[in-house]
Amino acid sequence: MTFRVTILGSGSAMPAPGKYNSAHILNVYEQFYLIDCGEGTQIQMRKYGINPLKLRAIFISHQHGDHVFGLPGLISTMNFLKRGTPLYIFGIKGLKEIIDFHIQHFEPGLNFEIIFKEINARSSDLIFENKVMEVFTIPLRHKIPSCGFLFKEKQPLRNIKKEAVDNFNFTIPQLHSLKNGENIIMEDGPVLNNKEVTYVPYSPRSYAYCSDTAYSPKVGEIVKNTDLLYHESTYLEMDKKLAKLSGHSTATQAAKIALQANASELLLGHFSSRYKDLSLFENEAKEIFPNTVIANEGDQFDINIKNED
Amino acid sequence: MTFRVTILGSGSAMPAPGKYNSAHILNVYEQFYLIDCGEGTQIQMRKYGINPLKLRAIFISHQHGDHVFGLPGLISTMNFLKRGTPLYIFGIKGLKEIIDFHIQHFEPGLNFEIIFKEINARSSDLIFENKVMEVFTIPLRHKIPSCGFLFKEKQPLRNIKKEAVDNFNFTIPQLHSLKNGENIIMEDGPVLNNKEVTYVPYSPRSYAYCSDTAYSPKVGEIVKNTDLLYHESTYLEMDKKLAKLSGHSTATQAAKIALQANASELLLGHFSSRYKDLSLFENEAKEIFPNTVIANEGDQFDINIKNED
Repeated sequence: MTFRVTILGSGSAMPAPGKYNSAHILNVYEQFYLIDCGEGTQIQMRKYGINPLKLRAIFISHQHGDHVFGLPGLISTMNFLKRGTPLYIFGIKGLKEIIDFHIQHFEPGLNFEIIFKEINARSSDLIFENKVMEVFTIPLRHKIPSCGFLFKEKQPLRNIKKEAVDNFNFTIPQLHSLKNGENIIMEDGPVLNNKEVTYVPYSPRSYAYCSDTAYSPKVGEIVKNTDLLYHESTYLEMDKKLAKLSGHSTATQAAKIALQANASELLLGHFSSRYKDLSLFENEAKEIFPNTVIANEGDQFDINIKNED
Repeated sequence: MTFRVTILGSGSAMPAPGKYNSAHILNVYEQFYLIDCGEGTQIQMRKYGINPLKLRAIFISHQHGDHVFGLPGLISTMNFLKRGTPLYIFGIKGLKEIIDFHIQHFEPGLNFEIIFKEINARSSDLIFENKVMEVFTIPLRHKIPSCGFLFKEKQPLRNIKKEAVDNFNFTIPQLHSLKNGENIIMEDGPVLNNKEVTYVPYSPRSYAYCSDTAYSPKVGEIVKNTDLLYHESTYLEMDKKLAKLSGHSTATQAAKIALQANASELLLGHFSSRYKDLSLFENEAKEIFPNTVIANEGDQFDINIKNED
């Protein structure tokens, strides 16, 4: 029951050797999702053993080049590799035109279907759902419409306590009802209280991706109690004027959001290339939010199951 | 008087870590030219210390993704770095629309001018000229219009023999005439034969870039006597059917062109990722054309001055 984030790129603006543009891979139960796709994303995917054909969906936060310039190459590579499975791409208005232009000019006989889902950058909506996960948008504050993504594992079915299984001879419909949290009426009359015979096996896990954005307490509200909060920190606090001017955040501001949200862990990224020592970001954020780490290419963050009992 | 080729990418189709898509840098007298621009080209430029702001012109052979997907990111980076100097881009019909689309969507207030020069993929034309170099197109045979580029150093001015400088008291106009190969009339009457007092300091150098193309003897005619001939060899001869089908060449075919052209050196590249051992390409070509090398990312090839005398 994997829930793992892999960093493909942690830099901002210009890519450089070892410092690629924004791109994260989220692996949820061995289903792979790509979040943002800067230039060289497909190169990083090969480096870290992620098969482009396994991508279920791509989520694009906004139409700045360092978040999308890898998309044409990745789509072409999927076509070259004879992908047949449809690919979902979630993005803000305007992205479809960019993808369509690419397909028209470079892949006119595309082997697979691209299902584009336009998202609204102004509200937090449920945009994707499968058996185990829901994805919500996070409106961000940037120079152009920009939105983050909150990936939430669904509340799991309740487990039935071993002693209850031994004591009662549950029918299959009864087991189904119990797993769904319902009380059941036994054959001989009495009502069996669900909570007496079942338990929640684990708390749903969550990952929030917030890039690019200026400091926005509204973000903190939406990502409340998230396990792993990725928040951009393009700048250090000493350059907060630059951050504000360019619609970005400082490490301090990212830490404030993590604190406000009561996140379990804060992951910083989207560093400006002006800073050579990235530990400055970590140290600055840790003064406000101690459980902070910085994103490096190839880093993996497993969000582990926490049992409720 | 540098004349140097740097390989940024030598792979075909899909880029991979360490094996980037087509891109060469040509440095002629410390003026930098980029030839093709696959995804990740700007990353490779940073790796090998080539400043994007120093690029005078970009030459794009054709509109397949592995030759152009790095262009949007590179243009955006130049803009981010506040380039002011105009940039020449040479390409086949259709490339301008791709560049315009990019600028419209990602760099609407571009700081610098892009001067697009449409080239004809069907004829060998002089498309660029400055004080020291001329560039000619090389029509190629590919699945879509495709054209290579022949970079030729101009015939240098003649040098005046030291003893002539000592013996005659040349005026500045006379020196100018002599350097340009003209005979001059001396003040006291006699005609001074140019060849008696001057010599050609060195032979003009040349570099030919031929990618992507099926085997085409016409290419061999155009690149006659070139110093360094880069010719694609996507496949080995055992896969020549695949080569023909996809409009590419084998190492053997590239070697035949080098032999026909009487090139000084053959450089192979654009290798299909199906082959793990690239020495097979070199060995195959060497059976026909011994002075063959294979392109690896970061390799530099200096074409040195050869004195005629």
